[in-house]
Amino acid sequence: MPAIDLNSDVGESFGNWTMGDDAAIFESVSSANVACGFHAGDPSTIAQTCRSAVAAGVTIGAHVAYRDLAGFGRRFLDCSYTELLDDVLYQLGALQSLARAAGSEVRYVKPHGALYNTIVHHEVHARAVVDAVRTFDKDLPMLLLPGAVALDMAADAGLRGVAEAFADRNYNPDGTLVSRREPNAVIHDAGTVTANMVRLATEGVITAVDGTDIPMSAESICVHGDTSGAVAMARAVRTGLQDAGVSISSFV
Amino acid sequence: MPAIDLNSDVGESFGNWTMGDDAAIFESVSSANVACGFHAGDPSTIAQTCRSAVAAGVTIGAHVAYRDLAGFGRRFLDCSYTELLDDVLYQLGALQSLARAAGSEVRYVKPHGALYNTIVHHEVHARAVVDAVRTFDKDLPMLLLPGAVALDMAADAGLRGVAEAFADRNYNPDGTLVSRREPNAVIHDAGTVTANMVRLATEGVITAVDGTDIPMSAESICVHGDTSGAVAMARAVRTGLQDAGVSISSFV
Amino acid sequence: MPAIDLNSDVGESFGNWTMGDDAAIFESVSSANVACGFHAGDPSTIAQTCRSAVAAGVTIGAHVAYRDLAGFGRRFLDCSYTELLDDVLYQLGALQSLARAAGSEVRYVKPHGALYNTIVHHEVHARAVVDAVRTFDKDLPMLLLPGAVALDMAADAGLRGVAEAFADRNYNPDGTLVSRREPNAVIHDAGTVTANMVRLATEGVITAVDGTDIPMSAESICVHGDTSGAVAMARAVRTGLQDAGVSISSFV
Amino acid sequence: MPAIDLNSDVGESFGNWTMGDDAAIFESVSSANVACGFHAGDPSTIAQTCRSAVAAGVTIGAHVAYRDLAGFGRRFLDCSYTELLDDVLYQLGALQSLARAAGSEVRYVKPHGALYNTIVHHEVHARAVVDAVRTFDKDLPMLLLPGAVALDMAADAGLRGVAEAFADRNYNPDGTLVSRREPNAVIHDAGTVTANMVRLATEGVITAVDGTDIPMSAESICVHGDTSGAVAMARAVRTGLQDAGVSISSFV
Repeated sequence: MPAIDLNSDVGESFGNWTMGDDAAIFESVSSANVACGFHAGDPSTIAQTCRSAVAAGVTIGAHVAYRDLAGFGRRFLDCSYTELLDDVLYQLGALQSLARAAGSEVRYVKPHGALYNTIVHHEVHARAVVDAVRTFDKDLPMLLLPGAVALDMAADAGLRGVAEAFADRNYNPDGTLVSRREPNAVIHDAGTVTANMVRLATEGVITAVDGTDIPMSAESICVHGDTSGAVAMARAVRTGLQDAGVSISSFV
Repeated sequence: MPAIDLNSDVGESFGNWTMGDDAAIFESVSSANVACGFHAGDPSTIAQTCRSAVAAGVTIGAHVAYRDLAGFGRRFLDCSYTELLDDVLYQLGALQSLARAAGSEVRYVKPHGALYNTIVHHEVHARAVVDAVRTFDKDLPMLLLPGAVALDMAADAGLRGVAEAFADRNYNPDGTLVSRREPNAVIHDAGTVTANMVRLATEGVITAVDGTDIPMSAESICVHGDTSGAVAMARAVRTGLQDAGVSISSFV
Repeated sequence: MPAIDLNSDVGESFGNWTMGDDAAIFESVSSANVACGFHAGDPSTIAQTCRSAVAAGVTIGAHVAYRDLAGFGRRFLDCSYTELLDDVLYQLGALQSLARAAGSEVRYVKPHGALYNTIVHHEVHARAVVDAVRTFDKDLPMLLLPGAVALDMAADAGLRGVAEAFADRNYNPDGTLVSRREPNAVIHDAGTVTANMVRLATEGVITAVDGTDIPMSAESICVHGDTSGAVAMARAVRTGLQDAGVSISSFV
Repeated sequence: MPAIDLNSDVGESFGNWTMGDDAAIFESVSSANVACGFHAGDPSTIAQTCRSAVAAGVTIGAHVAYRDLAGFGRRFLDCSYTELLDDVLYQLGALQSLARAAGSEVRYVKPHGALYNTIVHHEVHARAVVDAVRTFDKDLPMLLLPGAVALDMAADAGLRGVAEAFADRNYNPDGTLVSRREPNAVIHDAGTVTANMVRLATEGVITAVDGTDIPMSAESICVHGDTSGAVAMARAVRTGLQDAGVSISSFV
């Protein structure tokens, strides 16, 4: 029976500001990318998110980010190797403490936003994140974009790199994502999205934007949970996968 | 052979701003109260401080604080029980990660500044700190002011509370500190300070401001390290204690 | 023709987090308490809010606060007179710059959250806020709770203090607010709220929680805009006042 | 009689952390680049710095920066045009308020650190800073690196751009600075530095690192004040210029 993981960003509220419906998304996903306080997530938000994840049986991962609350971690920050290494270690430990208080622990790491995109190509920042994870716990898998330089570095460091697909994004025939600057970057139809993900999970292929089939080996699928529409899409993907005989379970 | 601990605040630099001479103070103390990022201490400062503490054989403690960089944790902040509990858990985990990366770990907890003074009497905040420490690791001692309500709560919670004395402060005949509003709150003469601390360590008494001897059971002595004068005073206290046959060693 | 001001808190989004529906509330109010960045409101949020206020013909006021993003300015912070004075001056200038860029300027000051409540009784903080406003522009009115110590201080300093009523709160027979700890602190029925505010604006009396009429001289009414229900309530109050022949206009 | 301006960075303390000796540097310079809170400078530090500048007769300029306290504004931050425009407007207004409280006002703008270096070539960020200054006060000069793209944009926008030289830096024969990666980037000998600046102020030439004379038209000279050695260097430059008959006065 084929299996795949569904992951989503959670714990992104901050103080009096609310973001996303974590309780609703926990009904669909198997892995939770929990904000660690640098782009979002105050300690009490993180604590509550961890308790909810544990109650829902969802695996906790660390969504580490650049130190940039005002920019939600979506802006490249030209920090040094040492600064980034230590920033990531700090975030991993902070989340670990709150995850343990909730009865679980950090089981994987996914870089967030600008950091996620930067370490696709930026060797110094990729090295810093990989070295932080290895130092913290060499058994933690890292969830990354297929083709990212950080994925190779993780493997070289003896870490497990896990590639993910994006449920609602169109792919080019070469396996890269259609740029968000293009009008067809995002697929809005739940049926199409679900059909694509079923093929990915059962056949290891995805239909590119030009209609050709391309091979893609992803162990996880990223879905969004920040709007009610996104939550509904996540539910559709989960149900569609299960109806096709695919088990939804964490890659850990 | 009598023994006592010497503790000092370290890791209080932040980004481009330097505070204290941690390397110098590590030559005198046995315990390091390391800032955790909420009142001072960016991740790279903390990481470097932990490495220096390990190299010097100094025990690492968590100097947890209210979330107030602009006020250096010296201003009372009326946060809730839950906010404080989670803020302390967050800080403990963050420091733990960097302490482990340096080859050691967090071995005790000392609240900083306004939090230290508040939990002498504020039951809700005292409870939050005690519950955070118990949740994080029930074997971690807490370094507190003698008479603090948090000290009783720690004992009730099965935690070890450790009372400390202040090397350069005058005491009232009832064992409380002479208020900093009084002109003779602080003792500036290294000889007097050292003689006081030798009597504390060897006889369990301290000479109050009126000349009377009062019993005091403290397992640790707090010394400062934020100025060159403070570092010299710490060295004098250490040397004086050792010359009197007192061993300097962590209470852990 | 009687007239009264309607004020509401706006500009409280921060970075990627949204709060309130400022565009909707601008249809009902005459005065906008704009966050200044210390409890909420990043510079681009503030700039956009000022442009929207100008477009809607709404008067801009400075919603100054304690420096506490994580607590949304709702937690007492024991800062010094000098720190608070300078923090308020900083916020006033920052908002002034963005208000002028939008074609208007700061026309009044309303302290936010914990600061608003603290300067009802805390003389040092009240003095700091009054001195900041007087230094910045002695012609700026201050919007305050009736009976606040800051209101007397403002008068003594030659500033104009403006008392406000709260549309949806119950009042005790002595004119104080029914505590939020009581079950009947808040009035949820739009008809009752509107009727109360019409009597306030036309007769200068308000019906207390025990049914007695009490005199109340308020030049402004505070309404909320943080939920769709709050926006509807604000609209009901505005319409009810206008239907009763009351003009809605800024107190400035 | 030839004249030139001497400028230095001040107001860079933050909360409990001290940086630089502003009182000492004010004895030598004619212009003060005052931190505005985004890379350094809490409101009370800024207020005190402005009072000291006024007392010393030194012109106040706004040292605007990326929002990055942890990185002291020295790290490129990939913010949008709108974010940067509004961040700069916010900082200008905040400083204006505190400068006016001290009896003066903001008289020029100098971008700080990574922002200064970025707008030598980054058109979007240069445009954002220029547009912010023009919006705030089109009569404010901008102090910039000769050759910066922002200098041309300022001129096109009808703003006055002022080029500055660096007292202790070596120049290449093409007028660019010798990179800090080169061992001879910085000149440490006060006599050489002073002689160079006298020639700059009196002849409009500077001796490049290869000994050739190059023309340079700078209206201001940047000196440092963050160490006691830097303060002594600044004093030497001032005295040397005055002894050579050069008047030290603000370019404003």
